[in-house]
Amino acid sequence: MKYLTEFNFRRGYIIYPTLVVVVGVFDDNKRANFMSCVWNTALSFEPPLYGVSISPKRATYDLVLNKKAFSVCFYPFEKSKDVEFFGTYSYRDVNKSENVNLTKGVKLDVPIPLDAYAVLECSLFDYKTFGDHTLFVGEIVVIHYDENSTYNLFEMPVLDLNKKKPVLYLGNGIYLTVDEKTILNLRK
Amino acid sequence: MKYLTEFNFRRGYIIYPTLVVVVGVFDDNKRANFMSCVWNTALSFEPPLYGVSISPKRATYDLVLNKKAFSVCFYPFEKSKDVEFFGTYSYRDVNKSENVNLTKGVKLDVPIPLDAYAVLECSLFDYKTFGDHTLFVGEIVVIHYDENSTYNLFEMPVLDLNKKKPVLYLGNGIYLTVDEKTILNLRK
Repeated sequence: MKYLTEFNFRRGYIIYPTLVVVVGVFDDNKRANFMSCVWNTALSFEPPLYGVSISPKRATYDLVLNKKAFSVCFYPFEKSKDVEFFGTYSYRDVNKSENVNLTKGVKLDVPIPLDAYAVLECSLFDYKTFGDHTLFVGEIVVIHYDENSTYNLFEMPVLDLNKKKPVLYLGNGIYLTVDEKTILNLRK
Repeated sequence: MKYLTEFNFRRGYIIYPTLVVVVGVFDDNKRANFMSCVWNTALSFEPPLYGVSISPKRATYDLVLNKKAFSVCFYPFEKSKDVEFFGTYSYRDVNKSENVNLTKGVKLDVPIPLDAYAVLECSLFDYKTFGDHTLFVGEIVVIHYDENSTYNLFEMPVLDLNKKKPVLYLGNGIYLTVDEKTILNLRK
């Protein structure tokens, strides 16, 4: 093992690959915006919470604070180009929902893109700044899922990897996905 | 798309797969403990921060609060059984470091398992409870990496997927890894 005591964490790609999600939010003119977010994680079972870390420099930061609701969208690997687009272009410059087929949340005014295999409808539960990003914590009030790319396990939808695969991010605009043939069940 | 307005998020496996890390911490008797943590994410570039979400029910919760330092360990897929072991057994019942070859951090008193391909040496920067888990935020002071399973990009180590692969968690004791043949560079 070697080590670094001085480093630029902007190049800390050693922590990847990991799952990238897309944060959706409406502006005051009912235009949907989408931002890819590689720093994301579930945070609580009860209440069900999901966190997305967003830089204050991003337009999405102000949109989420204003709307107090957002969607967390899980895109399939075949739509990686959309994920890269949502991550590199800004709301300030382009209408990122122009080519997105979407519906609205059933409980909250959040965009539900139909290309996603799952979408969490979230109300803003809390937020806290850690360093140069702010963690927005959403309470999940509705789980949307594509019934054609999921199956039921314990009465809950689970992604069917033989039908769709998740988008993993490797850093620097590079994406990949999983190999379902490597699945190991270690809790038989 | 279908949706659920009532659900048990303990079975919310639709959010997986994602990268699972292992949190390492020493107790007051210098015994190392390791706990797998699927709810984890980077949180800031400057200062470099990494968050791990831990239930107050876990022994690791008290160990981290007491020690105020921990390691975030990235295990290779070939060691998935260790990750499952670290996630299902408790410090209270077994010595989880008994069969782990490890060294100590160079700046902090944290365990560095030699089976990991990367380890972040973290001091406790902040922590905050969201729902039924607490997010422990570590400031990364040293990045350890296995020079035989990484290569350099922008003077920083990057995992060489042809040599080692990350451990992704699918829920319910099921693991898998990535398919490096699917790599897409979308920012050429």
